[in-house]
This record gives sequence, structure tokens and C-alpha cells, in this order.
Amino acid sequence: MNSNFKEQIEQFKLRNQNRGRLLVSCPDQPGIVSAISQFLFSYNANIIESSQYSTNPEGGEFFIRIEFECPLLKEKANEMKEQFIEIANKFSMKWTLTPVFKVKKTAIFVSKELHCLLELIWELQAGDLMTDIALVISNHEAARDVVEGLNIPFYYIPANKEIREQVEKDQLKLLKDYDVDLIILARYMQILTPNFVAANPNKIINIHHSFLPAFIGARPYERAYDRGVKLIGATSHYVTNDLDEGPIIEQDIARVDHRANVEALKKIGRTIERSVLARAVKWHLEDRIIVHQNKTIVF
Amino acid sequence: MNSNFKEQIEQFKLRNQNRGRLLVSCPDQPGIVSAISQFLFSYNANIIESSQYSTNPEGGEFFIRIEFECPLLKEKANEMKEQFIEIANKFSMKWTLTPVFKVKKTAIFVSKELHCLLELIWELQAGDLMTDIALVISNHEAARDVVEGLNIPFYYIPANKEIREQVEKDQLKLLKDYDVDLIILARYMQILTPNFVAANPNKIINIHHSFLPAFIGARPYERAYDRGVKLIGATSHYVTNDLDEGPIIEQDIARVDHRANVEALKKIGRTIERSVLARAVKWHLEDRIIVHQNKTIVF
Amino acid sequence: MNSNFKEQIEQFKLRNQNRGRLLVSCPDQPGIVSAISQFLFSYNANIIESSQYSTNPEGGEFFIRIEFECPLLKEKANEMKEQFIEIANKFSMKWTLTPVFKVKKTAIFVSKELHCLLELIWELQAGDLMTDIALVISNHEAARDVVEGLNIPFYYIPANKEIREQVEKDQLKLLKDYDVDLIILARYMQILTPNFVAANPNKIINIHHSFLPAFIGARPYERAYDRGVKLIGATSHYVTNDLDEGPIIEQDIARVDHRANVEALKKIGRTIERSVLARAVKWHLEDRIIVHQNKTIVF
Amino acid sequence: MNSNFKEQIEQFKLRNQNRGRLLVSCPDQPGIVSAISQFLFSYNANIIESSQYSTNPEGGEFFIRIEFECPLLKEKANEMKEQFIEIANKFSMKWTLTPVFKVKKTAIFVSKELHCLLELIWELQAGDLMTDIALVISNHEAARDVVEGLNIPFYYIPANKEIREQVEKDQLKLLKDYDVDLIILARYMQILTPNFVAANPNKIINIHHSFLPAFIGARPYERAYDRGVKLIGATSHYVTNDLDEGPIIEQDIARVDHRANVEALKKIGRTIERSVLARAVKWHLEDRIIVHQNKTIVF
Repeated sequence: MNSNFKEQIEQFKLRNQNRGRLLVSCPDQPGIVSAISQFLFSYNANIIESSQYSTNPEGGEFFIRIEFECPLLKEKANEMKEQFIEIANKFSMKWTLTPVFKVKKTAIFVSKELHCLLELIWELQAGDLMTDIALVISNHEAARDVVEGLNIPFYYIPANKEIREQVEKDQLKLLKDYDVDLIILARYMQILTPNFVAANPNKIINIHHSFLPAFIGARPYERAYDRGVKLIGATSHYVTNDLDEGPIIEQDIARVDHRANVEALKKIGRTIERSVLARAVKWHLEDRIIVHQNKTIVF
Repeated sequence: MNSNFKEQIEQFKLRNQNRGRLLVSCPDQPGIVSAISQFLFSYNANIIESSQYSTNPEGGEFFIRIEFECPLLKEKANEMKEQFIEIANKFSMKWTLTPVFKVKKTAIFVSKELHCLLELIWELQAGDLMTDIALVISNHEAARDVVEGLNIPFYYIPANKEIREQVEKDQLKLLKDYDVDLIILARYMQILTPNFVAANPNKIINIHHSFLPAFIGARPYERAYDRGVKLIGATSHYVTNDLDEGPIIEQDIARVDHRANVEALKKIGRTIERSVLARAVKWHLEDRIIVHQNKTIVF
Repeated sequence: MNSNFKEQIEQFKLRNQNRGRLLVSCPDQPGIVSAISQFLFSYNANIIESSQYSTNPEGGEFFIRIEFECPLLKEKANEMKEQFIEIANKFSMKWTLTPVFKVKKTAIFVSKELHCLLELIWELQAGDLMTDIALVISNHEAARDVVEGLNIPFYYIPANKEIREQVEKDQLKLLKDYDVDLIILARYMQILTPNFVAANPNKIINIHHSFLPAFIGARPYERAYDRGVKLIGATSHYVTNDLDEGPIIEQDIARVDHRANVEALKKIGRTIERSVLARAVKWHLEDRIIVHQNKTIVF
Repeated sequence: MNSNFKEQIEQFKLRNQNRGRLLVSCPDQPGIVSAISQFLFSYNANIIESSQYSTNPEGGEFFIRIEFECPLLKEKANEMKEQFIEIANKFSMKWTLTPVFKVKKTAIFVSKELHCLLELIWELQAGDLMTDIALVISNHEAARDVVEGLNIPFYYIPANKEIREQVEKDQLKLLKDYDVDLIILARYMQILTPNFVAANPNKIINIHHSFLPAFIGARPYERAYDRGVKLIGATSHYVTNDLDEGPIIEQDIARVDHRANVEALKKIGRTIERSVLARAVKWHLEDRIIVHQNKTIVF
């Protein structure tokens, strides 16, 4: 990444050296918030933001996200994690405790259409997304100039059905080499194999160019045009092995009328795709999303 | 209808005694607008509003809606229609010329949920819809009080699969007796037979409680909940014999989040259903809709 | 109120006999959430919903709203309030602890335009607002039929500048007699005196028919028309003695174009006014609003 | 401009060599549409798109925009203009007839914040705006790299109150040298003098970072924050000599809540500013706007 980005990340780390985020899911019962907040208070941590949700107060599932400020977090984080295990066990929690200064590393996959990639870069430059774009992988050369212009490594890996296995092997190696936390499919027009998806559970975010579950699969704008819809949409979701059936993170729509032909729908759609993907990525980076039974809770 | 409504309709007729609407579809070519506007000018008519659309200027289909003010329209309307045939033939037009003072007669079909019916009545009372509600037909008694309270005839016709044939025979007779122009399915939860639909082409407007083509068929809110969508919608369309596949007139959506259970989705959805159906009906009553190849052009 | 409403309220009370809400504002510091949640846990209360906000984690103001389920709340509520004083003092809290079964009593003030009143009644009937409408006061007779039709007491109190003092004296007496918790100005077109406002701090909700602070004062739609705006709006706010300057609770807008004359703006505006006021009232009734320095925090 | 843009423009010209636009305002009376459409038909022109509006059919003002396809327009345009004068005189028309292949030349003025400039360039690259950006003028150096990177001339002209007269003299000379049709103030934070404005009537488009007429003048986001609004907005308008009082072209808003501080409002606002300005510019370039009595008609 170029020096501006690197500088931005360093400042962010400094500003957030004491900031942590705790995500918890567990069966609901009285005493959970009390136990967690006492735990945090015992480290002199101040709760900055807290959101919770319960599917059903009686016998349901409980979810909470807490953002806190804790003096000397860098030094204490590991100890906190160890100590938290006792509470976690008592309440049968699934949980993560993430120091904010650990900036997530991202790989962006893209094909020929660059608008989603450009939007992510735009948001990054504006300071609205905080991630370290470790690399960009594409089955086309279209994005090379803009990506390399920002000193981000660009890998051109041609792809098609026949060579998919080798392609994904190369890709997975790169992801491992760069220690990537999140894969963003920014209009990457290749299908991923179950093998690839299984290796990255809830770590691949896709943008689908329709309002799912309408127009699952290929050519959604063409099919929206044929159906004569009055609104078109875009959907960002985690990738699972059911095509376009993974947990939905965010959706949005725009109004269209009979005047819009397929080309116009695509143009209007690009604006929605850009913002929907950017919001989904932002929420993931901020640890705002919990996946539960093929749905997302977004705090 | 009660005296307030009748009074409103009479005032509307008086106010619009010289107002007419011309709807035309034909193959596109130069000279259409010129021919139509000369025709209108020859009757000293003033064009108040005009909208047009062409699928493709070269060899496409042309559509136009003109609203005009013509002195003595009441006396001249029939002559105008006769005279227009020459132009219509020359350009191979499908067309209608409708005097606005001919207020359309409506039949509303409803089941147990009354929010769409109530919205239509509300809009009527506010002067935002101009129609003569000739009768309300229901397979439940729930709407009787409110309908009869407005002096609108209410017909309770129980319905189910077994007796559908006889039910529709009774309904069609009522529609004929009351000389109905438009049938509004305001959450009428019975399927109509091909026979009934064929008897009323582009004359039945339905409200479907999802963002079509997502969640075609029954229980859309339950299925939206299961899928974890972030937006829910409603769709108003003309009824054809393909279930929920008729030409879409209007759609809208509302944002929801993980907190909304099925009951909450239904509540939020009702607000969208109300306004989407009311807009579609309004546009139909104002002769703003042309159906073309299972799509609508809404001027 | 008619028997349907009364029945609805009784069911709501029963369903929520153990439900409570705690609202707290205090200077921010570590340990607040811990203290509150321990307190609730000591009563075996389960936190159902919790939202918090801090103006600035370092030396700012802290706000929290907690909704909880506490066995035998009816019996324990008073004891809880007494016991909470210790925590409240320690953290210098302003706070309220409200049992949900104490349904709030509302007075609706209205003039000639009834759409906001009708919307509130509609929401009430749909089970989306939970309040006991104790009475309706109007300076016109327009609303009498609909209000008395629901067995809600209706008071016709003519009003104008000259007799304002006596009018408000009568109104305040009624509010006291009916033990009213909230006053809703549902398009009540009279200005209230400082005396009346001072007697009801943060207890009067008004709907203003513009997007404040644009078009403060009279005739906002006429002025919006003259200015040629492309969006019109409505604003719901608590009433203070600065005209249309009180804390804003909710705002919304609708798109308009050059075709809309003043009459059309008013029609479009009514739809926004209805929903904006209904949302603001709903949030107040659910104890979601904290007023802080002429702004609202809406949880 | 760089070769891509130049190529795009040339293709656009070729594609639109027979496309023209006619804008007309005149007192309303029967026969206007007939006269215009006969005129166009006499040149064998096909009307592609037509929109009209009348302030009041009886004695009001009439407006129409017609887009047409006319064989050999390039050769005939001047003759058409001459011939149209007769009709124009008969109906007391103000009018323009613009061949679409005459691509408008634009000057963009910008200060330190580049998001609006970048959005315009983005739209240009996507083929959604058709203009020849002749030059960019700025009182800061911030935009130089991106502008010169596209081979667009960049002029750094420092500006402040004291030297305003000389600054504007230099700017006006550049506008004349480059034969500019439209000036876009893309967050240019200097006030223009009456002299400058008078030299460019309805040719300067500004983006104001509030929902006008709320927060006229400086620091609108700070004032929106202080007022505690729940929606923030942006307004694009033609510049007149009354600050922020010129004819409004487009407005939009975004929802905010109590969590948004001034910095957050600015971030959210930037997204609205970008799209609002881009739409206004697009409509101007497509000759869709008629200014009438300090309002815009946007067809």
C-alpha cells in the first residue's frame, strides 16, 4: 500500500491502542450482562458502545457486542482472553475478544468491472474503512493500473471452469502468504468451489447484483428488465456453498421505471452495488456482524 | 356510497366536464405527435399534460398519454372518437379516448385483513382517489361494519376451493349488475380461476405482500424472515393466470433488521402494502397505465 | 375508550406485568454498566434490550436505556426504586425506572385537520401504539364524531388569542382531572403560552409541517412552494417556549417536483406528518427518548 | 482531457449527430404543441422524448422540452432556427434549439475538499455525464495531481476577500479563453461577486451542504449538529446574488441519529453532496432545466 494508507493505518492503531471489542453468543439467561460488565470493570475498562439482542428472552439465544476502552490493553489482552474463559464456560458462550489495533488484512477479488473496487479504495482514502488491503487478485488485467498505482500487489490469475482447481490452489497460497483475514468479491465473476469456501467460513463477502432472493444466479439485470420490476437492488452476503444463499449482510434498492433499458439498469445498479458492498465490508471490519443460522445479526 | 362521497363525485364531474385523456400505442415513426396534436387543436382542445415513451426510436413501439381540456367535450366526445379512427388506422394505433367525467366503478375484494381496504377509503375521503366504490365482496364478515357504515353494498360470499366455480359465478354476476370497471384485490386471500381472470383482462389489480419476484406464492413474510432479508416489500400488479407473474404496476420496500420477527415484518409490511396498492389504483383510475408485453408503462 | 381498546390495554398489562424500563443519564466513567447490571441481576432480572451512548468516553455524558424482565416486578418495583438511589447517588445519575404495565395516559389536541389524529387511532387499533387516550380537546367540532364514536371524551374548547388565558386554565384543569402523562398536538393550530408549556416539560409533542429549521412558523407549505424546494418534510418535537425550536424527535421528507402546487404539497405532506408524529409518540410511550441540551437521544 | 475522454466525446457526437433538443416557455393557449410538432414533422424529425408543464391551463405559463431525431440535423440546424422564429413570435416564446452534438464545455471550481470533483470525474469515466471539462480552477493545490493526471488544465488561483476583484478578472478571462458554457462550484469555498454572477446567468451551479433553506451560509453541519436534526441534506442550485437563494435544482437527505458528531455528519453529507451535484449537472447538460421565477422546472 502507498505511504498515505500506511500512515493512516499507523495513526489508527495509535488512536485505538486501548480499544477492544467483545462479541458473544450464548443461551439467554439472567446475569450475562452483569458477569461481562463486572469482568470488564475489573480491568478498569470503560464500555463505549454496547448492543444486544435476544431471539426470545425465555430460552432463546443471546447476542452482545461491546466496544470498550481499556488502559494498557496491548499488554493485558492475552491475560483478559485467558481470564474470560471461565465466564464463557459458565454461560456456554461462543465469543471473540478483538483488539482494534489489530487491523484486518483484506484480499479483494475483482474481474472486469471496477466500480466496487474503486468505491472501496475511495472509502479507504476518505478514512471510512479501516483495513490493510494486502493484495488484489483478478482474472483480468483491467484493475492492474489503479491497484499498482496505490502500491498494492496485484496478481493476474486467469480463471475458468477447466483450470479452477489450480487457480484456487494458487489463490489460497497467496491468501496464506499474505495472512489475509477477509476476502471481498468485488464483482468477481467466477464461482468458488466448496473447497475454497470451506477454507474461509464467514470470511468471504460477495456483492450480488440483485435484491436476493429475487434473481439468484446469472444475468440479474437482464431478468429484472424482462420481469418489468419497478425497483432494482443489490445484496451483500457471506459466501456459502449454496449459490447466492449465504447469510445476507446488507441490501438496498433504487427506483426505476419503464424508460430504463438493461444498460440503464446496470448503471443505476452500480451505484447501489458500490454502497451496499462498502457498508457490509465496513461492518465486518468493525466486528459488528454475528452469523447465526444462515442469518446475520448486525450491531 | 354515503352522501359525502356522492357529493365529492358530482363536484369532480362538474370540475372535469371538459377534461379528456387519450392513450395511444403504435409502431414508432415521425408524424405521430403532429397528427394527434393537430387533431386535438382542430377541436380547440388545450393539451394539459403529455407523456410519451418509445422502446426504440428506430422501429420500436411508441406510447403516449395526453390529458386535454376541450370545450363542450360532453357533446363532442363521440364525434371525436369517430373522427380519430382515421388517424388511428393510418398509424396502426391501439387507443382509448376517455372523458374524465366518466368516473370508474370499482369492486373491492377483501378477506380478513382490512388495512388495504381502509387505506383506499381513507384516500377516497381525502379526495386523493376518484372512483365510485360500487360494492365490496368478501369471504369474511370482518369488513361489513365499516363498509355498510359508508352506505356501500357489502356482499358476504364464503369461498373455498370446493365451491369456487359457484362463488365466481355469483361474483361475476354482481360485477355485471353493478357495471364494474375495475376489481381491486385488497388482500383477498383466494385464488381466481382462469375463467374469472380471462373475463377481466387488465382490470384486476392485486397487492402481493412481497417484493416480486422474490417470495412468489404463500406466506411471503414467513419466508422473508427465514431468509434473513434486510428489506421487505410489496408489489401491486395486474392479475394474469400465472400466479404473481402479472404486469407489475408499483413496488416499494422498507428496511428491517434482525430484531424483526415474523409478526413485526407483517406490521411493517402492512404500511407498504397500503401505499403501494393505493398508488397503483390511483394510476389506473387516472388512465396512466399502458400494459405492453407483461410490463407496464406508467405515465 | 371503547371496549376493544380497553381489552387491548388489559391484555398488554398482563403480558408486561414483569417488564420494566430503566433510563439513566450521568457523567461517563468506568463501572456504570457493571453497577446497573449487577443491581438488576440481584433482583433476578433478565436484560431484554439495552442501548447506550456516550457523548465522549473521556469526561462526557453517559446515557443508557435498559428494558428488563423481572419476576414479581409489580411487588418489587417500589423497593427497587428505593434501592437504586444508592447507585444513582454514587454516579450522580438522573434516572427513571418505569414499570411497563403503567400504561401512559394521553391527551390529544387537534383543530380542523384530522389526519394526524386518525393515524394515531389507526395505529392504536392495529396494536402499534400502547396508550390510554384519556380525552381529545379541540377548538373545532370536526373531530367530535370520530372521537365520541370510540367512546373517548371529546371537549370542544373554542380558542383564540383574546381568551387564551381562560382556555388554557380549562385545558390544564382537564389534564389534571384525567391525570394525563403526555399531550399530543396533532395539528392543533393554537400557540401555547409559556405558562402552559412550563407546566408540562418534555411532555408536549408537536408535529410541525416542515423540515425544521426550514420554514419555522406559519404557512410552511406556501413558503416551501415559493422557494421551489424539491423535498418537503415534517418534524416532530417537544414543545418549548421557543416556537418550533424544541428538541427534535423525528423528521422525514418526501420528494416533490415543479408540478406540485401548494394544495399538492399539503396532500403529500399529510402522509409524512402522519407517520412522523406516530413514530415520535410511539418512542415516547416506549420510554425511548432522553432529552439532553435541547436535543433528543432516541434509543 | 486525456485520450479516453476525448474518444468518448467523439463517439457521443457521432451517435448524436441528428439529435436535437427544443426548450420552450410561453403563455399557455391551445395550439402550441400542434404548431411545434408540425414544424418538427416538416423536417421529418421524430420526437423521441417530450415533457410539458403548465402552471395553470387557463392563462398560465406553458413549458415544453422536446428531444428529437432529425435526419441531417447538422446541415439543417441553422435553417430550423431561422424558420422557428415565426412560430416563436406567434406564441411569444422564449426558446432554445440545441444540437446534442455541441458538447458543453465545463469549468470546475474547487477548494480543498475533492469529493464532488472526484464524483464528477467518476461519472464522466462511467459515461454518465457528457461534457468537455475544459479546465479546473482552484484556490488550493490539492486537486492538481488528479486533474493533471487526466490531462485537464489546472489553474491555481489563490483567493481571498482582499484580492477578489483581480482573482475574478483572471477567472473570467480563463472562462472566455476556454469558451466555457457551464461553471460548476464543486465545494468552492469563496463567495462570488455580483459582477461575476451577472456575467454568467443560470450558468453557475453550486452545491450547498445543507437542505436549503435550512442552514443558509457558513458551517451548516456544525449548525445541524447544534440543532439536533435527524436528517441532513445537500442542495444544488443556480447561483444568484442572494447567497444560497438561487433556483434549487436538486436536493437529497440522509438519516442521522444522536450518535453522529460533526465529523460524522460531514462524512455522511459528502455522499449526498456528491450525488446531488452530479444529478444537477447531468440535468443541465441534458438541457432538462428551465428557470422560471427563481424556481426550476426539471424535465
